[in-house]
Amino acid sequence: MARSTNNRLHHVVIVGGGFGGLYAAKALKRVPVKVTVIDKRNFHLFQPLLYQVATGGLSPGDIATPLRAVLSRQRNTLVLKGEVVDIDPAQAKVILQDGELNYNTLIVATGSSHHYFGHDEWSQVAPGLKTVEDALDIRRRVLLAFEAPEREPGPERRQALMTFVIVGGGPTGVELAGAIAELAHSTLKDDFRNINLAETQILLLEGTDRILPAYPPELSAEAEASLTRLGVTVRTECLVTDIENNEVTLSSSDQVKQIQAHTVLWAAGMKASGMGQVLADRTGAEVDRAGRVMVEPDLSIADHPNIFVIGDLAHFAHQGGVPLPGVAPVATQQGRYVADLIQTRVTQNPSSSRQVRAPGKDESAPAFHYRDKGSLAVIGRNAAVAELGRLKFAGFLAWLVWVFVHIGYLIEFDNKLLVLIQWAWNYFTRERGARLITGVDPFPPAESTAPDGLPVMTIMPFWTKTGSER
Amino acid sequence: MARSTNNRLHHVVIVGGGFGGLYAAKALKRVPVKVTVIDKRNFHLFQPLLYQVATGGLSPGDIATPLRAVLSRQRNTLVLKGEVVDIDPAQAKVILQDGELNYNTLIVATGSSHHYFGHDEWSQVAPGLKTVEDALDIRRRVLLAFEAPEREPGPERRQALMTFVIVGGGPTGVELAGAIAELAHSTLKDDFRNINLAETQILLLEGTDRILPAYPPELSAEAEASLTRLGVTVRTECLVTDIENNEVTLSSSDQVKQIQAHTVLWAAGMKASGMGQVLADRTGAEVDRAGRVMVEPDLSIADHPNIFVIGDLAHFAHQGGVPLPGVAPVATQQGRYVADLIQTRVTQNPSSSRQVRAPGKDESAPAFHYRDKGSLAVIGRNAAVAELGRLKFAGFLAWLVWVFVHIGYLIEFDNKLLVLIQWAWNYFTRERGARLITGVDPFPPAESTAPDGLPVMTIMPFWTKTGSER
Repeated sequence: MARSTNNRLHHVVIVGGGFGGLYAAKALKRVPVKVTVIDKRNFHLFQPLLYQVATGGLSPGDIATPLRAVLSRQRNTLVLKGEVVDIDPAQAKVILQDGELNYNTLIVATGSSHHYFGHDEWSQVAPGLKTVEDALDIRRRVLLAFEAPEREPGPERRQALMTFVIVGGGPTGVELAGAIAELAHSTLKDDFRNINLAETQILLLEGTDRILPAYPPELSAEAEASLTRLGVTVRTECLVTDIENNEVTLSSSDQVKQIQAHTVLWAAGMKASGMGQVLADRTGAEVDRAGRVMVEPDLSIADHPNIFVIGDLAHFAHQGGVPLPGVAPVATQQGRYVADLIQTRVTQNPSSSRQVRAPGKDESAPAFHYRDKGSLAVIGRNAAVAELGRLKFAGFLAWLVWVFVHIGYLIEFDNKLLVLIQWAWNYFTRERGARLITGVDPFPPAESTAPDGLPVMTIMPFWTKTGSER
Repeated sequence: MARSTNNRLHHVVIVGGGFGGLYAAKALKRVPVKVTVIDKRNFHLFQPLLYQVATGGLSPGDIATPLRAVLSRQRNTLVLKGEVVDIDPAQAKVILQDGELNYNTLIVATGSSHHYFGHDEWSQVAPGLKTVEDALDIRRRVLLAFEAPEREPGPERRQALMTFVIVGGGPTGVELAGAIAELAHSTLKDDFRNINLAETQILLLEGTDRILPAYPPELSAEAEASLTRLGVTVRTECLVTDIENNEVTLSSSDQVKQIQAHTVLWAAGMKASGMGQVLADRTGAEVDRAGRVMVEPDLSIADHPNIFVIGDLAHFAHQGGVPLPGVAPVATQQGRYVADLIQTRVTQNPSSSRQVRAPGKDESAPAFHYRDKGSLAVIGRNAAVAELGRLKFAGFLAWLVWVFVHIGYLIEFDNKLLVLIQWAWNYFTRERGARLITGVDPFPPAESTAPDGLPVMTIMPFWTKTGSER
């Protein structure tokens, strides 16, 4: 591009480098626009495999790719590491924590985070799985939950340490439960001398009447059967009413029950990112109860044809008003759709390619239509459930499909063939080599492993125990 | 082993799961003793490749192996995650933060940490490279140092951000300088739009008259030439007299100079771990100025034939009183030597295999002798220096030797063939896929990127700059 035209190019600002934002940016590669991608983090995270990091199977570097690396050869695109705190539609500006930037078209794709349904205090004791830091925190908690009982506290405390409660029976909860079960019953089976890993309890709690409620009932049943085989206890129609350190209170039908559990993981709720409210305040857009922005059929905000919302942040009323699920395929298709729309506008209306004018709404643009290629949820080694159009199947074949779909995505960015090899390695050896405990230790040893409060206890090595010969 | 004999087995307690401790434990696999390995961390860290984590080439999981995984099939061995705070030689006990443990033979291998020569306050502004957390901290600082100037602060501030000072011209300093140079001049070369990576300054400071002072002078010269080709400025006979945020004060001959540098890394000094002083206090052992414990020819402590000190923590007077260097081969050979010695004692003196009796000192044991197989230091892609016996060479061949030696070590534990593949990938693509910025952001953006203290600055995208067409 010659410099003289460059400054007059239409400027697309994309906030968020997740699936929606990144695919929109990539689809704008050959479009005569300038693109700026803004993200708080310097990397795109392949969220669907984050549970593998949380359970020691993969390293963060295996599933994250620097945004600059993905877009380095895309010469019309600038990556900016920064946090958008506000927008000013009247002046067509995004406001960052430390600066501001003009746009002609704005794409907001800032995703979602956990939602504790009014119990934000639970976030301390029941972390969710959304960021790399979340995953490393969960990895640390899960691994330490086995380290502490190896030091031989009393049997009650040991049982609490070796009890894992996963709240929420959607795909993330199912993945976590399955992976922790494999960790306890397969990967770690030779690692300890004092504890009996068969005592590990893994509870998966779901509020509705079946896990994977978005899937057909027969696949929910298959998934529950697979999890049970792996050693997971599934409880449906079961609500969590309180979570404190080491204790979860459940309420199912008319029973209330306390469970002693040291590790509680949250996979129950999602809430749109704060940008949803910002957009609502600044544009008058409506948001739904989960904080998602209601979008027009072309994914723009009503009366703001040059502001698009895509991915988890968008509420796109699909069939019968049901919003599209917050999954990667929806976000990527929306990113590509908006990129196409921008290309059409810029090409059909050359004057809109000037920085001084925002593009008018193209009334003839076809509405976004989600092409549902199917749903996949993985449970564990050789076990997954798949719904591909009218095909519904479970077990090894579904797992194979799941593996290849995910590897395909990973390779698309970064040639992460290594992840395939790492996975094959983990698969055959049943190893999880990345099970490192890093960062701050959540179990200060003196308090938490000495059940009677004594500061010093005598450690009984395994060979002095009755019946501990192996 | 039958239970009846088990409790009477000689108990070897090893403190520290680094090279010394882990190789001692592995060498005791078939010896009729019980072994307990105690480490604060749950993994063995392959320190020689930590600089690759610090510069985004590898993930922590690539160079760390869970201690339990390494020793899971070694049935006479227990791994204990815990911190030893004291020992009681009279009662043959190690005192942990939260418990205590009896030993018959004690091997202390707790290594070393950074030493700031009385300037501990520098540790905040000039982190050293010893732990996984250190490496991730350095990775974050180095990567953010490029992110901030892309946001266009003033030219002076930009130059300070893009100036890296590495203090200490030993192997770690050389590795870090070379890797940062490759990052700036090769890996990141297409990643930015506003900054000119050729402006990156990398200074390697060494107090003596040449870098790699432990190597022959011709190899020091080769290393300096290689670093210069990579874009590193080497300054010898140059002492750091002060480090503050963004400013390093140097003193060389009779000149004092300030350098504006945002990223300062410390690779200059080492100090033995605190266990050295504990051992000195409890056994009367001498320690040297670096806190290392003076050991007998058989690596035991004088008058305590059942307490051994190995690895970086030991001062073993080699030729003419020069202590052995703190490198992995010394530690592994010492670990194996002590294991052999214990085997001899236990086998030759069956009564010593009882838990109730400590073994007597075997006067006929041959002294430890370090077999120096050579030294290798890597500078960067295709560049290393090697001293193997009387052979001294540099360049690609030395680099190849370095690669295969290190891969060999890695594979020995964990079949980490994947690291070889990852490396080959990095080598051919010049990529460093693990360059993630995680954890806390050390550059709060509002303060540090707005040079004039204004809370809001207008971000000028690259295409609006004069001469920024690409």
